[in-house]
Amino acid sequence: MIVVGTGFAGLNAAKELKDAPVEVLLVDQHNYHTFQPLLYQVATAGLDVGDVAHQVRGIFRRQRNLRFRQGTVTGVDWQQHSLELADGARLPFDHLILAPGAVYNDFGIPGVKRYGHMLKSVSEANTLRSHILRRFERASTDPSSVDDGALTFVLVGAGPTGVEMAGALVELIDRAVPLDFPELDPAATRVVLLEMTGAVLGPFAPRSQRYAERVLRRRGVEVRLNAKVAEVREREVVLDSGETLATQTLIWVAGVRGHPLAEALGLELTKGFRVRTEADLSVPGHPEAFVAGDLSGAVDADGRPYPQVAQVAIQQGRHAARMVRRSVEGGTRTAFRYRDRGMMAIVGRNAGIAELSRRLGGLRLRGFVGWLGWLFLHLLYLPGFKNRVSTLFSWVYNYLTYERHARLILESAPSPAELADRRGELASHDEAAATPKLHGARGPGSDADDDPTER
Amino acid sequence: MIVVGTGFAGLNAAKELKDAPVEVLLVDQHNYHTFQPLLYQVATAGLDVGDVAHQVRGIFRRQRNLRFRQGTVTGVDWQQHSLELADGARLPFDHLILAPGAVYNDFGIPGVKRYGHMLKSVSEANTLRSHILRRFERASTDPSSVDDGALTFVLVGAGPTGVEMAGALVELIDRAVPLDFPELDPAATRVVLLEMTGAVLGPFAPRSQRYAERVLRRRGVEVRLNAKVAEVREREVVLDSGETLATQTLIWVAGVRGHPLAEALGLELTKGFRVRTEADLSVPGHPEAFVAGDLSGAVDADGRPYPQVAQVAIQQGRHAARMVRRSVEGGTRTAFRYRDRGMMAIVGRNAGIAELSRRLGGLRLRGFVGWLGWLFLHLLYLPGFKNRVSTLFSWVYNYLTYERHARLILESAPSPAELADRRGELASHDEAAATPKLHGARGPGSDADDDPTER
Repeated sequence: MIVVGTGFAGLNAAKELKDAPVEVLLVDQHNYHTFQPLLYQVATAGLDVGDVAHQVRGIFRRQRNLRFRQGTVTGVDWQQHSLELADGARLPFDHLILAPGAVYNDFGIPGVKRYGHMLKSVSEANTLRSHILRRFERASTDPSSVDDGALTFVLVGAGPTGVEMAGALVELIDRAVPLDFPELDPAATRVVLLEMTGAVLGPFAPRSQRYAERVLRRRGVEVRLNAKVAEVREREVVLDSGETLATQTLIWVAGVRGHPLAEALGLELTKGFRVRTEADLSVPGHPEAFVAGDLSGAVDADGRPYPQVAQVAIQQGRHAARMVRRSVEGGTRTAFRYRDRGMMAIVGRNAGIAELSRRLGGLRLRGFVGWLGWLFLHLLYLPGFKNRVSTLFSWVYNYLTYERHARLILESAPSPAELADRRGELASHDEAAATPKLHGARGPGSDADDDPTER
Repeated sequence: MIVVGTGFAGLNAAKELKDAPVEVLLVDQHNYHTFQPLLYQVATAGLDVGDVAHQVRGIFRRQRNLRFRQGTVTGVDWQQHSLELADGARLPFDHLILAPGAVYNDFGIPGVKRYGHMLKSVSEANTLRSHILRRFERASTDPSSVDDGALTFVLVGAGPTGVEMAGALVELIDRAVPLDFPELDPAATRVVLLEMTGAVLGPFAPRSQRYAERVLRRRGVEVRLNAKVAEVREREVVLDSGETLATQTLIWVAGVRGHPLAEALGLELTKGFRVRTEADLSVPGHPEAFVAGDLSGAVDADGRPYPQVAQVAIQQGRHAARMVRRSVEGGTRTAFRYRDRGMMAIVGRNAGIAELSRRLGGLRLRGFVGWLGWLFLHLLYLPGFKNRVSTLFSWVYNYLTYERHARLILESAPSPAELADRRGELASHDEAAATPKLHGARGPGSDADDDPTER
């Protein structure tokens, strides 16, 4: 059987199959698991790439029935029961768990893919970090670039990632500008968080939302609610109102959609490009195939789609794996039921929010305790002993010294347009595209097989 | 005054000027110091990039008389006393210390720049790591690629870097192949170390050389002495004897030459493209300018050029800075005198070599004690508390677990040809070039201003 994807869903599906009487082939474009919740800390120079990426073969070293195959999935041949890879390989399967994840949704807004920095991969996080730090170097050598938006950082989307990134960005700036760039005017830097709805942290309780907004504003983030982006240009963002903001850095974290592989599957999609599934997460008409994680369009008892968060992905991955076991070992299939534990977000230093689900007592924590809880849980879920110790040390160091040690501008970082191009998302006409479609999508990313070091 | 370069020489020159009555402008293409002696550990997945790179503005935060400018130096206008940068800036100076370092010398051998991996920058180390790990993934999916050299790793040059890299590579392979790639035959992997002279570790004592060679051979490295490379091709290396070795990975660490900036300076060069200097390290005819580190062609009392190693660079950087102080504060100039402390090299786990200079007693250590001494001294010279702790932890972890945690294939890593092209070294006719000249050289690397994330 084949598991596609090494995110939370795929990783946990594969682990759940540890002692199952099946041979598991795990396929991903990368040879590592990306711990997405901490990518924003890589982008803000608090963590190294190695802290949030853990290579897959190491994770499954002791799992005898699992093999890994690095490759980019381009489609599924439902007739032949085989998986199609970009390198031409056709991998036969009896059972299949698809968990390629999600990508950021540009909602068809012109310029987002070309100029917007996204935060779904270590490459993007690396690129964003180098880009941000380069703005300061630029402003330092060419003060006129400040008027041109060099020191204005605009984030679009005030979900957890947008809030966390905005909070981390002001902390980086508060420290970096006065100490590293005494030649720059701290007042010239701006961090603007645009949110199209009327509140930050959408799914959280109103008190938590107000708390997060208050903390962000106090720390210097310009929070602008009910602000919609109409277009992104090379050095400015145009709002629906016609207002423009001069900026050289647009960070697009405004909601996700199912992975582009969705459109290549020939399956029925739901809102947000997610695959419609049966209650047991199997694909309608294909009881041997399952979709888990962000790509799954599964709905709860009330018909609402599940949030695209790590906990859902983990539980769906495990459920799909259990269904495969029952299919092989015998046993009845059951409907997936999400055990909601709650939500967490971090606003910055000493400021976190944790809302336990009603099932777990409905406790709501804000401030220092919520922050500690966030750190603890993320450390717990981070795979790999080395990564955990290294991340913990970085956190303690960053906390005590206020430093962000990894302030490195790596010249090999590709631009957002290059990254989008590698994903096959940047067709020449993307700026004119009116529909929220990804162009030329190939599979779970498409860069793995464009081996740049290949001869 | 201006200091060019943030390697050992430039960094130490700048530090030495801490309380001097001068304003120091430090210029480098990167915003970080690269700790070159440990790059090979990044390439073999033992360390993260953040461990060996330390950003410059942080290092000089408390040095009030220093400013940093990121930029690529393209030349010096000796008439106007100004430094020329690739972005068009002209920076005036009263005093100048040039310390751009060295690059690997291809000795005019065809194909080296296009296909050879070098180890002078974090980009190159990152690229090499991804490339090596990708060979295993490739061999895993396409067993026929093994005959095509996928698992044959050829190193050219058995100096300290070549020996260290070969030793680290067999350790990576010994662990990775049986555990991560059980589908591969360990016997199919080869690490070949080619050396054109008759011994490894040229400058060391014969007993140390024999020790290193013995350890390498015992651990599985094919050491081939008196082997000269005639040409490097896409999937093979051609030796002078006509013999070819099928390989997809050529690591070129066969000796260095002065940085390409040398040719752009209009100054007299010595062997190896180093700038001829006076005894006080100043440039003949330009007493206000100094050259320190690998680019310096300074010679000792016997007329021999100094080795291009960290200790020489550190001491020359300090000496040049002291000469600038005397020029400003008054005082006579003195000749540079190298206080040789000895040499160290590491062959691998538990196997190091340390040869103290005769001045320090001439003690020679081999094996475990030499290895410990190497680790201790490198940790001591690594700048930054965070980097030191992180590196120490990685070493302890790697030692105890035999793991190389950073086995990540980063798809954004550029190819050797792309890297050489960015340095301006890959002219279209380089394959045909017969002279050991670098083409289109621009300055201390030339990639900083080709800002790939620039709009």
